[in-house]
Amino acid sequence: MDSDILNLEEILKEIQPPDESIIALAREHTAKLALPPRALGRLHTMGERLCGIVRSLNPIMDSKAVVVMAGDHGIVEEGVSAFPQEVTGEMVKNFLAGGAGINCLCRHVGARVIVVDMGMKTDPESLGLKAGETFFSHKIAPGTANFAKGPAMTREQAKAAILHGFQRASALFDEGVCLLGAGDMGIGNTTPSAAIGAVLTKASLDDMTGRGTGVDDAGLQRKKAAIQKGIELNRPDPLDGLDVLSKVGGFEIGGIAGCILAAAYHNRPVVIDGFISTAGALIAHALCPTAAQYMFAGHCSEEPGHKIMLKHLGLEPILDLGLRLGEGTGGALAMNILDASVKVFREVLTFDQAGVSGKEI
Amino acid sequence: MDSDILNLEEILKEIQPPDESIIALAREHTAKLALPPRALGRLHTMGERLCGIVRSLNPIMDSKAVVVMAGDHGIVEEGVSAFPQEVTGEMVKNFLAGGAGINCLCRHVGARVIVVDMGMKTDPESLGLKAGETFFSHKIAPGTANFAKGPAMTREQAKAAILHGFQRASALFDEGVCLLGAGDMGIGNTTPSAAIGAVLTKASLDDMTGRGTGVDDAGLQRKKAAIQKGIELNRPDPLDGLDVLSKVGGFEIGGIAGCILAAAYHNRPVVIDGFISTAGALIAHALCPTAAQYMFAGHCSEEPGHKIMLKHLGLEPILDLGLRLGEGTGGALAMNILDASVKVFREVLTFDQAGVSGKEI
Repeated sequence: MDSDILNLEEILKEIQPPDESIIALAREHTAKLALPPRALGRLHTMGERLCGIVRSLNPIMDSKAVVVMAGDHGIVEEGVSAFPQEVTGEMVKNFLAGGAGINCLCRHVGARVIVVDMGMKTDPESLGLKAGETFFSHKIAPGTANFAKGPAMTREQAKAAILHGFQRASALFDEGVCLLGAGDMGIGNTTPSAAIGAVLTKASLDDMTGRGTGVDDAGLQRKKAAIQKGIELNRPDPLDGLDVLSKVGGFEIGGIAGCILAAAYHNRPVVIDGFISTAGALIAHALCPTAAQYMFAGHCSEEPGHKIMLKHLGLEPILDLGLRLGEGTGGALAMNILDASVKVFREVLTFDQAGVSGKEI
Repeated sequence: MDSDILNLEEILKEIQPPDESIIALAREHTAKLALPPRALGRLHTMGERLCGIVRSLNPIMDSKAVVVMAGDHGIVEEGVSAFPQEVTGEMVKNFLAGGAGINCLCRHVGARVIVVDMGMKTDPESLGLKAGETFFSHKIAPGTANFAKGPAMTREQAKAAILHGFQRASALFDEGVCLLGAGDMGIGNTTPSAAIGAVLTKASLDDMTGRGTGVDDAGLQRKKAAIQKGIELNRPDPLDGLDVLSKVGGFEIGGIAGCILAAAYHNRPVVIDGFISTAGALIAHALCPTAAQYMFAGHCSEEPGHKIMLKHLGLEPILDLGLRLGEGTGGALAMNILDASVKVFREVLTFDQAGVSGKEI
């Protein structure tokens, strides 16, 4: 780790908003295209915002990657998940074998899949997994502590999770990645995400807590009770993103926050996915509100609190297809639309170029 | 033209619904995938419906084409459009040069663009355009008649427009196209589309009539008045799709209806686009309600009546990005999502294949 770069306060100070003057020039270009004014709707606004983010009137989104951050959660002791905890490691193995939803959708949109062990309970070597080009270990600890009984992690661990995520995403941007997705894997992780959402958006637990991968009514009650207990016990400070992450968060959620801060730091767009990925975005936003201007919301999840989170971030989802898988899948699918938006910007001819008459009046 | 095939009554009789038994088998397969039950939401339902449409549990959507049907409209005499009528031909030239929105989005999703002159006012030869692999002339007449003063076309012309569309799409399916989009180009064509929408959905003209490519308040009033006059004068019969098309429709709208009937006839999916394309879908549905089961609604247009049309057809739009261009653009972009849905179906591993534990309970 390069300690010159990896100082969180320095990173946050360096982040600047997208370039509004480039966005204004981009809007002028759109006005000349041979189509009724802004007839491709949000494709125009997305393309123009991407110009402002990358500081170029020739934005290209060909090199894409999705980072899937994996971690486990002590809170599963409270009976908040329908799946056993081993599934986190088993799914990581599936990601590296190419057989999961995120692999399929990344192949479809031409994105690489990068998997990071931020804090799985499973030892990846026990699954035969070795670190390499697509798998990295930044394991902070083998799972968080049960936040219904104390903080999920220390403040130092929270900072380390963010910095590891920052480092991993920065390496990808250095390699030429233009468009990053941030996904998650972690059995039980809708529970810390709902806790983060409730603390940072101030929504009620009833509005913020859903069934995740499919708990029954009793499981949903246990989940709400565990979150309430955790918030009352740990008193996370909504004005301090690191405090929220450490008290009720997760290692993979911190990693996602770090990826997002890296995008903002490097003037690159990042596509967030569903409920857990957006919880990471809330942490990044709490640390640096400007970071939200580098985010695109890939989709609107079926998890009911997701809409509230997106509203808090000022983001409108690109897709709304009833997805609730995580892994980065909704973000991956939306990359295709973002890619289309810059192609519209670059490739559609103007009235003059195409020899088409403008409006009569 | 092959007159054995090109008998409209015969075509309509041959159309059968998608195979429900294949859809049931497809749902059984989805239930085994290594993800929480149906966690990819509408990607699962789309993929399964595509299985039922193509009668296969191995659906492939790699060969795609968008047919852009072009025509002009006598109703422009009533001052219903903000653009001059020459733009129809100029845009067709732009489509064939590859510079329009539909070209850009079709390149993006890997679809061919096929342009058909169904009844432009412009002689394509005057623009230097020759029929060939991507441009076809099925010109019924150089523009419809002004339907505020009499029928837009004869019943025979309406039938011919549908049959030419059917023939063109059938040729594409014969060449191996798996996924068809149906788009439009025609200055003034939101006016006949709103008329068709009002007659077939029984919505009010206020709800069905929008600003199209951007008429002002006075233009909008002229547009509503022209449609009202046309409906009162011609009395289109909502129980007779051919009558509606001939009284208040357009040649390109008939061509689109024919493409859609061809998809249903050949057991192939068709993606409809915005307001005009969906007016064509309403005609196809009026002639054969079963045809709607072969349609996917690419997106929800900004044109206010579009939602009402889609509801009438029982379709939920795939995208909602504020597009209002036409040309088939929204349908083209949605092809990418349909393609993703069959890849999810084919490529995501099952719990057993991936070695992932199922639900605990």
